[in-house]
Amino acid sequence: MANRILIIGGVALGPKAASRARRLDPDAEITLVERGDLFSYAGCGMPFYIEGSIDDVSSLLCTSQGVMRDEKYFVKTKGIRVLGKTEALRIDRERKTVTVRDLRDGGVRELPYDKLVLGVGAKPIVPRMEGIDLGGVYRLYSPRDAQAIRSELDSGVRSVAIIGGGLIGMEVCGAFVSRGCRVDVFEMMDRLVPALLDEELSLLLENYLRERGVGIHTGSPVKGFRGEGGRVTTVITTDGGEHDAEMVIVAIGVRPNTELAREAGLEIGATGAIAVNELLQTSDPDIYAGGDCVENTCILTGRKVYAPMGSTANKHGRVIGDNVTGGSTRFPGVSSTVVFRVLDYNVGKTGLTEREAEALGYKVVTALTPRPDCSSYYPGSSSFIVKLVADRETRRVLGVQGMGLGEAVKRIDVVATALKFDATLKDLADLDLAYAPPYSTAIDAIAHAANVVRNKIEGLARGVPPVALRARLEGDEDFVLLDVRSEEEFREGSLSDRRVVNIPLDMLRDRRDELPRDGEIIIFCRTSVRAYEAQRALEGLGFRDVKFLDGSLKAWPYPL
Amino acid sequence: MANRILIIGGVALGPKAASRARRLDPDAEITLVERGDLFSYAGCGMPFYIEGSIDDVSSLLCTSQGVMRDEKYFVKTKGIRVLGKTEALRIDRERKTVTVRDLRDGGVRELPYDKLVLGVGAKPIVPRMEGIDLGGVYRLYSPRDAQAIRSELDSGVRSVAIIGGGLIGMEVCGAFVSRGCRVDVFEMMDRLVPALLDEELSLLLENYLRERGVGIHTGSPVKGFRGEGGRVTTVITTDGGEHDAEMVIVAIGVRPNTELAREAGLEIGATGAIAVNELLQTSDPDIYAGGDCVENTCILTGRKVYAPMGSTANKHGRVIGDNVTGGSTRFPGVSSTVVFRVLDYNVGKTGLTEREAEALGYKVVTALTPRPDCSSYYPGSSSFIVKLVADRETRRVLGVQGMGLGEAVKRIDVVATALKFDATLKDLADLDLAYAPPYSTAIDAIAHAANVVRNKIEGLARGVPPVALRARLEGDEDFVLLDVRSEEEFREGSLSDRRVVNIPLDMLRDRRDELPRDGEIIIFCRTSVRAYEAQRALEGLGFRDVKFLDGSLKAWPYPL
Repeated sequence: MANRILIIGGVALGPKAASRARRLDPDAEITLVERGDLFSYAGCGMPFYIEGSIDDVSSLLCTSQGVMRDEKYFVKTKGIRVLGKTEALRIDRERKTVTVRDLRDGGVRELPYDKLVLGVGAKPIVPRMEGIDLGGVYRLYSPRDAQAIRSELDSGVRSVAIIGGGLIGMEVCGAFVSRGCRVDVFEMMDRLVPALLDEELSLLLENYLRERGVGIHTGSPVKGFRGEGGRVTTVITTDGGEHDAEMVIVAIGVRPNTELAREAGLEIGATGAIAVNELLQTSDPDIYAGGDCVENTCILTGRKVYAPMGSTANKHGRVIGDNVTGGSTRFPGVSSTVVFRVLDYNVGKTGLTEREAEALGYKVVTALTPRPDCSSYYPGSSSFIVKLVADRETRRVLGVQGMGLGEAVKRIDVVATALKFDATLKDLADLDLAYAPPYSTAIDAIAHAANVVRNKIEGLARGVPPVALRARLEGDEDFVLLDVRSEEEFREGSLSDRRVVNIPLDMLRDRRDELPRDGEIIIFCRTSVRAYEAQRALEGLGFRDVKFLDGSLKAWPYPL
Repeated sequence: MANRILIIGGVALGPKAASRARRLDPDAEITLVERGDLFSYAGCGMPFYIEGSIDDVSSLLCTSQGVMRDEKYFVKTKGIRVLGKTEALRIDRERKTVTVRDLRDGGVRELPYDKLVLGVGAKPIVPRMEGIDLGGVYRLYSPRDAQAIRSELDSGVRSVAIIGGGLIGMEVCGAFVSRGCRVDVFEMMDRLVPALLDEELSLLLENYLRERGVGIHTGSPVKGFRGEGGRVTTVITTDGGEHDAEMVIVAIGVRPNTELAREAGLEIGATGAIAVNELLQTSDPDIYAGGDCVENTCILTGRKVYAPMGSTANKHGRVIGDNVTGGSTRFPGVSSTVVFRVLDYNVGKTGLTEREAEALGYKVVTALTPRPDCSSYYPGSSSFIVKLVADRETRRVLGVQGMGLGEAVKRIDVVATALKFDATLKDLADLDLAYAPPYSTAIDAIAHAANVVRNKIEGLARGVPPVALRARLEGDEDFVLLDVRSEEEFREGSLSDRRVVNIPLDMLRDRRDELPRDGEIIIFCRTSVRAYEAQRALEGLGFRDVKFLDGSLKAWPYPL
């Protein structure tokens, strides 16, 4: 008898699992159940539709050849039966059936399965707060939300409040600024994107957005909204602040849809998402789950993490397609790679941040290195900042964050690849990465960052993190802040502090007597390349307490 | 007594080794000897200077802060003694001295060393042929050559012949086309870039350049040049062909400078370059060598290869800097990554080509997959073609080639990283690569290619390489060429062959009776995604001999 494969959820995981299963087993009876009427849509594209860089919302619903992924598409092209507008109500694991209701006519029936697949996704967290149901308060969940938001913009809305300074908050922030809106971002935590970035990078991103006119309100939990005539007008923060807004986007995160699994007695993990093994089986071996409703394994630490991502859902779909047709493919886990674009800024990370690594007990050592993305003489060369995180004892790479106008994302992919194989810092430095002037520097940004960390571990390079220096600048201590850039660069602006002196690197040997041989000297330049050179030169000349500012002025995350 | 480190060669390796040694040992006496008067110049940038995208040749000679890397720079900034315009004549290994001649005054003297470093580079191969010394015949070796070539263009030269269709030939070809020149490329072998690319990719590149008006003459060895008044006018090929050219660039490759090493009795490897161990010591442990004058180890095969590259020279420099100051850092080798840009085309490879892998005895299996570089609905999305090469038995990834208008180079870096760790196809497919619509597709091009190869190994996907299909099209055999694109796409053009029939994928199940159940069917579409789907569908319906065209029309390397 044909294998009956029943799949709940038609957005990312479900269609992928169904398609793979069909290619593997032409005789299987494959049924896809979806509560809505949109299938396989590109939810990640919604901010770009709002922005206007995608004209037609239907391009998020079509194949790259422009074919709408509707019920007919799945039946005709894939040989998959699709039940749209159909809600799964409960699973009977004994009888191996799922009770579903047709949302059009209310009809209830039971669908039998041999293998059941849950691809039920996640939904935005909607906080219970005053005014959350006012007109003009949106979440961004489906293409219909995106259409509604865009038509608000088209009809003249010009000020938007975004509740939540995380990934989605940042993407829609960029979209609204591009549309000429006044944007305010409210983040409960004390900095932007706190779950993905370390403090320096959060601050650098904040500076960038402030320069673009965005109002950033960190450490500002929102209490609720007030409106007039049923329409939002004001955001109210817990400290009593009031901020005008013609529209509000609530983007404080998503939560896995686990009700169906929970009611069926399937195991829910500590992260709150459905627990699965490497075969993506739930605690019932005939029920598989994947995509945004399950938890993943972190390949670095073995811990369970909740890391919903469209790319992971697609990988899950292939694995499940294999396994519901008799295969035994394993999914090893994720390194929690996340990237996003905000206006011209490329931002991302993979692996552990410094904060996460420290919390896990690693002896962390980092580099904060500004770097051009291609040869600095090549037209269009842009810089970006790399923060590389490693373990001092094993010299293993733990993670990277990258940010800037330059091509940061390529380097995140390189580290994501390296993390898969427990790479060390030397491994990164030895990589035979592609070099030609339009693409890279002769020493690629990642190799450079790895070498800086190696220099630190070997006691050659002594870095001071900008956050630490900033704290010391507020005190009265005596130390020298040595700017080794040229006099011309110095005149254009430097750190404003009474302790700053300028001696260009090429005069350092001659003018050494101007510096205190036993006093503390913290050196900086533009990117720290010259500052490190100067640190070693002064040490060679007998100076005893010399350090450099990590990332120097390019990575200084405060106003100058 | 201070460690005396003597370095011959001031372009890439030498200055890097000197700088690293200085940072490690402040007391060492470091001397850098250079035959010319330009130091540390960015030779890789010369094509872009010719093209005009770099205005001032001095930007190739300066740091990114605009400081000229001259003798004073090294003395003042780095504490390194530099002897410019000084030629190394011979090494006396017994007495540990190098005899040098000052090219300005002819003075000869001996320089003592404790550790000697050879960073003597490579020089362009200049074939002995008629007319090679005519005016207007150039090599591209130093920034002075680039200046001379550019001033020819500025003074009106408008037709250029390039002898050699390899990496440098391609880069300068792009530069001249950008400057509005008529360009002819003469390549002795039967296709472009034969050392780096497999046949399909060579042909695709050739098509692209022909469309841009470049004359491509493959299988056309050049016999010599004819001129008038001492100035080149004509390129003569061995088959007697004559081609007008106002300027000629000879770019048939480089050869390592080994005379100094050879005369000192140091071991020369089978590749013709200086042999070194993992510490980059020559056969004399007090003499190190690196950069373009040495051979490298291929990290995949352990074989020695000659793979000169500025990025490798920089890595060598750091390793040698460590080791001449008491360290024991090892350089593991290269995967022979090479990338270049020709006009808007990004081209590159890492690891083994199919041809190389076959010659080494691997059971090769490949994917040829066109793919968008980011979500196809995202503005600016461009496609490129990936050729992934793997070993059928171990499923190990052996190499990749990428080419197109899209961001191919990022994916080459990912595979270069994976090759370092003996990655399998499943490893590639499982990578947690960065996904967001501006950067990638939910299934990245590399994961897609890896999955296609896995499908082939598992007997699910049956590909026909375009080169093989082309050969069969010329015969009379009966088979069906099934185009499963939409009728609209089909009307815009398809393979022109009597055997072509069009049945769109979504009609395939209904119209199956139009196809021969036992006859051979070769399916194609635009990128092969639908063709593979159709192959599996037909097999599921009982068709026995169904295959698809690798890469379909997007990767078809012949005129349609």
